[in-house]
Amino acid sequence: MSLRAWPRFVTLEGGEGAGKSTVLAALREELAARGFEAVCTREPGGTPLAERIRELLLDPRHEPPSAEAELLLMFAARAQHVRETILPALRRGAWVISDRFTDASYAYQGAARGGDPAFIAELERRAVGIVPALTLLLDVPVALGLQRARGRGAAADRIEAEREEFFERVRAGYLERARGEPRRFRTIDATQPADAVAAEALAHLRRQIEAAA
Amino acid sequence: MSLRAWPRFVTLEGGEGAGKSTVLAALREELAARGFEAVCTREPGGTPLAERIRELLLDPRHEPPSAEAELLLMFAARAQHVRETILPALRRGAWVISDRFTDASYAYQGAARGGDPAFIAELERRAVGIVPALTLLLDVPVALGLQRARGRGAAADRIEAEREEFFERVRAGYLERARGEPRRFRTIDATQPADAVAAEALAHLRRQIEAAA
Repeated sequence: MSLRAWPRFVTLEGGEGAGKSTVLAALREELAARGFEAVCTREPGGTPLAERIRELLLDPRHEPPSAEAELLLMFAARAQHVRETILPALRRGAWVISDRFTDASYAYQGAARGGDPAFIAELERRAVGIVPALTLLLDVPVALGLQRARGRGAAADRIEAEREEFFERVRAGYLERARGEPRRFRTIDATQPADAVAAEALAHLRRQIEAAA
Repeated sequence: MSLRAWPRFVTLEGGEGAGKSTVLAALREELAARGFEAVCTREPGGTPLAERIRELLLDPRHEPPSAEAELLLMFAARAQHVRETILPALRRGAWVISDRFTDASYAYQGAARGGDPAFIAELERRAVGIVPALTLLLDVPVALGLQRARGRGAAADRIEAEREEFFERVRAGYLERARGEPRRFRTIDATQPADAVAAEALAHLRRQIEAAA
């Protein structure tokens, strides 16, 4: 199975506190205003089964998965998400915006957790099979992102509770992915105010809407 | 990571109604009588997290996983089982007897469900890393096995509820594995009465105890 790029498939990537939720809402509104069906989804998750896998992955009260189990659970959830939610939407002509996708596994389970990128690529080919046409990477220094995320007051999930060095490796992993695929990735400086970040994201979306037309 | 064979690691394989539970109890008793610590475990499962994955895999009330998600969930559970339960036991010198292990994925997710055996082998190398020294395959014709399993009266789980052709492919997959690794596999005719099957299994275990000494 080779990877197929879908023009109406857009992903948001970034570490903790990068502001993905605000951007997702802006993109959703833009697509709705233009009369497109927009399916907004997230990973891990996006189907009832995948949301249950998310719970196994993130709930800090459970037995923590080993690095290998974490990687395989992420891809099990993603395989289900692609087959049950993302592909049906793309096939009927909808736009799909996913809060995280396969790039997150290269950053979190690969760069940060030490998983072999060749194995991750094999899982991507075998169990995912699709790539977004546009990936918006919201980049923010780790200290600022964590300060924002923790300022929300919600309890940290198992991965959010990692140490700062872990998130430095996540950030470096994302930036390396972006350098390796400059046509697909658009990196946005997410230290800017939220409306400036959203405006930049919208400009990229509008260009993609023209390209996909 | 290459595969390491552990002399005190024994697995039981076979389709529905092959009589694995009776054999497992006999092996456990033999090891206990000789003063060995014996850890008896099962797949999917064997740790709290892996048992929760088992529930996602088998409960027919849930959204059924796609073939890819099923395969990856099985290996996520197995990775956790190896790291948290099997390897710690083997490293302290215990015997481990597992009701199903990686061969089951070659038979069920591979031969029966159509998964590529090369991908399964990659998952085995990357996320499992160990093989038993002895695998007892309890072989029984599908119709007889299903009759026995359904005679137990328990409700069928999602995989047990498959059609007969599925179990024919499982059986053929197991027999092919056994032919491919004749030193590790011992195939037992499980149409025999339960005590004859158990006696044959015990004879193989005793030889393995001598070999492992």
